[in-house]
Amino acid sequence: MSFAELDHLCRRLEAIGHAQAMLGVDEAVNMPEGGGEKRAEAMGVLASMAHEMATAPHIADWIAKAETEELDDAQKAAVAEFKRSYINRTCLSSDFVARQVNAAMRCEQLWRSLRAKNDWNDFLPSFENIVALAQEEAERRAEVLKLSPYDALVEQYDPGSRSAEIARVFADLKGFLKGFIPEALEAQARRRAKHPPKALAGPFPIEKQKALGLELMKAVGFDFHHGRLDVSHHPFCGGVPSDVRMTTRYRTDEFLSSLMGILHETGHGLYEQNLPHDLSHWPSMKARGMAMHESQSLFQEMQLSRRPEFWVFALPRAREILGLEDVSVDDLLAHVHRVERGFIRVDADEATYPLHVILRFEIEQELVTGRLAAKDVPEAWNAKMTEYLGLSTAGNYKDGPMQDVHWPSGAFGYFPSYTLGAMMAAQQWAAVERAAPDAAAQIARGDFSAINAWRRENIWSKASMLSTPEIMRQATGEPLNARYFEEHLKNRYLTT
Amino acid sequence: MSFAELDHLCRRLEAIGHAQAMLGVDEAVNMPEGGGEKRAEAMGVLASMAHEMATAPHIADWIAKAETEELDDAQKAAVAEFKRSYINRTCLSSDFVARQVNAAMRCEQLWRSLRAKNDWNDFLPSFENIVALAQEEAERRAEVLKLSPYDALVEQYDPGSRSAEIARVFADLKGFLKGFIPEALEAQARRRAKHPPKALAGPFPIEKQKALGLELMKAVGFDFHHGRLDVSHHPFCGGVPSDVRMTTRYRTDEFLSSLMGILHETGHGLYEQNLPHDLSHWPSMKARGMAMHESQSLFQEMQLSRRPEFWVFALPRAREILGLEDVSVDDLLAHVHRVERGFIRVDADEATYPLHVILRFEIEQELVTGRLAAKDVPEAWNAKMTEYLGLSTAGNYKDGPMQDVHWPSGAFGYFPSYTLGAMMAAQQWAAVERAAPDAAAQIARGDFSAINAWRRENIWSKASMLSTPEIMRQATGEPLNARYFEEHLKNRYLTT
Repeated sequence: MSFAELDHLCRRLEAIGHAQAMLGVDEAVNMPEGGGEKRAEAMGVLASMAHEMATAPHIADWIAKAETEELDDAQKAAVAEFKRSYINRTCLSSDFVARQVNAAMRCEQLWRSLRAKNDWNDFLPSFENIVALAQEEAERRAEVLKLSPYDALVEQYDPGSRSAEIARVFADLKGFLKGFIPEALEAQARRRAKHPPKALAGPFPIEKQKALGLELMKAVGFDFHHGRLDVSHHPFCGGVPSDVRMTTRYRTDEFLSSLMGILHETGHGLYEQNLPHDLSHWPSMKARGMAMHESQSLFQEMQLSRRPEFWVFALPRAREILGLEDVSVDDLLAHVHRVERGFIRVDADEATYPLHVILRFEIEQELVTGRLAAKDVPEAWNAKMTEYLGLSTAGNYKDGPMQDVHWPSGAFGYFPSYTLGAMMAAQQWAAVERAAPDAAAQIARGDFSAINAWRRENIWSKASMLSTPEIMRQATGEPLNARYFEEHLKNRYLTT
Repeated sequence: MSFAELDHLCRRLEAIGHAQAMLGVDEAVNMPEGGGEKRAEAMGVLASMAHEMATAPHIADWIAKAETEELDDAQKAAVAEFKRSYINRTCLSSDFVARQVNAAMRCEQLWRSLRAKNDWNDFLPSFENIVALAQEEAERRAEVLKLSPYDALVEQYDPGSRSAEIARVFADLKGFLKGFIPEALEAQARRRAKHPPKALAGPFPIEKQKALGLELMKAVGFDFHHGRLDVSHHPFCGGVPSDVRMTTRYRTDEFLSSLMGILHETGHGLYEQNLPHDLSHWPSMKARGMAMHESQSLFQEMQLSRRPEFWVFALPRAREILGLEDVSVDDLLAHVHRVERGFIRVDADEATYPLHVILRFEIEQELVTGRLAAKDVPEAWNAKMTEYLGLSTAGNYKDGPMQDVHWPSGAFGYFPSYTLGAMMAAQQWAAVERAAPDAAAQIARGDFSAINAWRRENIWSKASMLSTPEIMRQATGEPLNARYFEEHLKNRYLTT
């Protein structure tokens, strides 16, 4: 019974994963600073124990035997996904992983201090080392996975996505956005000339913001029997599916950044809470990759919660709790629908955000394949920023290629997930509306039950039993198509 | 290098222990109810992983080889304590442990429901089973440890303590308390007749109680860089030495139960925070047993914080934060020095508490050795309660032998620790006063530095490198002696 042996291993790995997830939450939410050293030590030991257990050579025999055993479909899918993750975990040597982890840790530390100083030159040697290691990783993985080197990296974050397909939808979207951004800015200027945006006057006490956040989380379906909301410096959604730990942070001069952040993380949380319970300790029952996860948070934030109908429902609640007198839905939408060109990805709105991602996608492919040298990244960055967003980053490294932690920490192939997620969310919403033409009216009533039922059936219940593209195809009837996201942007931002 | 192999193992066990400790804290403080099932599963898997790792047969070889290696004194002590704990961990078969854990879990569950119903008869069969398993455990351990069966159980909680020695000091104390309790009650009645106790008028808002608690924790030496205070249903001191997590619970009609509880737990916390850092992943550097731990919490609570001088320092702070107008130190002491006979151990004051413990010590010895049958416990209990405290528990099982969770959960040999700790604390205080005759005056100034320096040098820094009796002997110059605790009680309760 090799399935039984794999099952036992999955339970052990899940227990360590549970501990790691909860220790991570505790570190961000509760841990006093002095606890950090021993915590890091404990986390390191747990990680290496899990790695050893998950990569033991005899597991290959268990998998091979389990594949010949009589199993039901869910068990077969479990073994297949376990095999995929086992291959991905074992195709790098421990030596190489240790080298890479060390280099990434040093490069990330360097990045933290040098970014503030805009110091590209001192950062470059360490960054060149990281790029070289990423190339080596990509080649080793590519050989085992029979993929192109860059695809082998994308596979780590978004299983089944291929760069040719990503390039196709990104080219479509980039072409669209070039013309769209100026149009959206003009439409916005006209709207503002007609109705100057009204300031939402604070202060907004934290306790009241929290009450509103909790109420809206509950309304959209978050289960507080299996999760909670805390405060941390960087908001996140962590924990485990049976106990989802979300965080936010509050400022008292405005409430929308925290509230929209809560709704975004709630999208991640709903996905986790609604994963299947059977075989939940197997990788096949975990959430499917970064792009799918981001599609769920962006579905919640962009497709549901920035929609006018959402505020028809939510504004009376916000008014009662926060005391927003004389604020209309349109007043609020002027704040949540705002397009602005800027340098920084994490501050970008949903219309300009994809251009930040496409720029990184294009550059990192060139880096991984060696067609672009690390030292030439600032020039390439400046050229693309100027072309896509009309902003020069010449000499401005900290707001250019030094703004993100991803590359210094060794994460190449991750960036596309953000925009793939945004496009997937728009395409999912279109499918929801085909299935329930009054979906927007349901939102206006604060009724998310049918929408969540669609998501549960088509996305959440699939867990990792299919690849990302296949879940999308089955859920929406077609492969990823940029058109839905483009239509969404037109509908939202070109009105006057 | 077998020391190196043991060192590596200790690091792994410490990492799992770290996770277990923090998951335990999270469960009590933060976890939503629905997270419980998966949490219990994860904790069970972590416990069995740790047990497997810690009891592997090849460890015996590592220990034997390490004993022949050239090691410094701390390393030698580390190996010796590791060996002691390895022998204690491995002297029961996995089968037996599993049988015992299951029986205890069932008996404890039964106890929870039947205690409320005062139903001894339905509880008895399960309890008989637990007693039989405890006898079996005691015999097996006794054979390996070359101790008497009951001593072999005491050894699990309080290494080095022997029942003959415990019986000697308990007999002394029991003889003393028989006459003392009536005298203390009379003295108290006279005091109250002269100065009727003043009610401390609430309500006391939780935020203010918390502010006072935090301030006093800090004043007595708790390091908030390495710890914090939260709220839980049952107050405890958990976490790890580098990150001590204390909890309390508040009621708004009075503040002393929470505050004295905080100071009690702070005693545990100070011990943990001040354990040595070198080799801290070895058992030799962990806190020494239950009696020593309880001596530290009772030192903080009974010896320091219920002392009049403490309130000379603390009352002005309490007055400023809580607004206690017209409350004098004597008014406060009337509340914190209160003697009352009662049925329930956990509600008892420091003067009557030892009688509750001695009763249990006497009964559990008879149970473990088989001289008393489980079915005859209520009769023995009633006889002793009547003799020691003048209270009959005939037919009142829930306030008699069914009041504590210890026996239903299989913990025999644990009870003496509470009163040993109280006696040790009094003896330690006497040693402090010999070393610094103005120690009480230091407390009145809110200066705990010299007192904590004594505790650090004589108790905390010893960790588990010596047995409990040996630490006491070195710290106070003599073996445990009931006289110090008796003097303490006389000084505190016989004044008029």
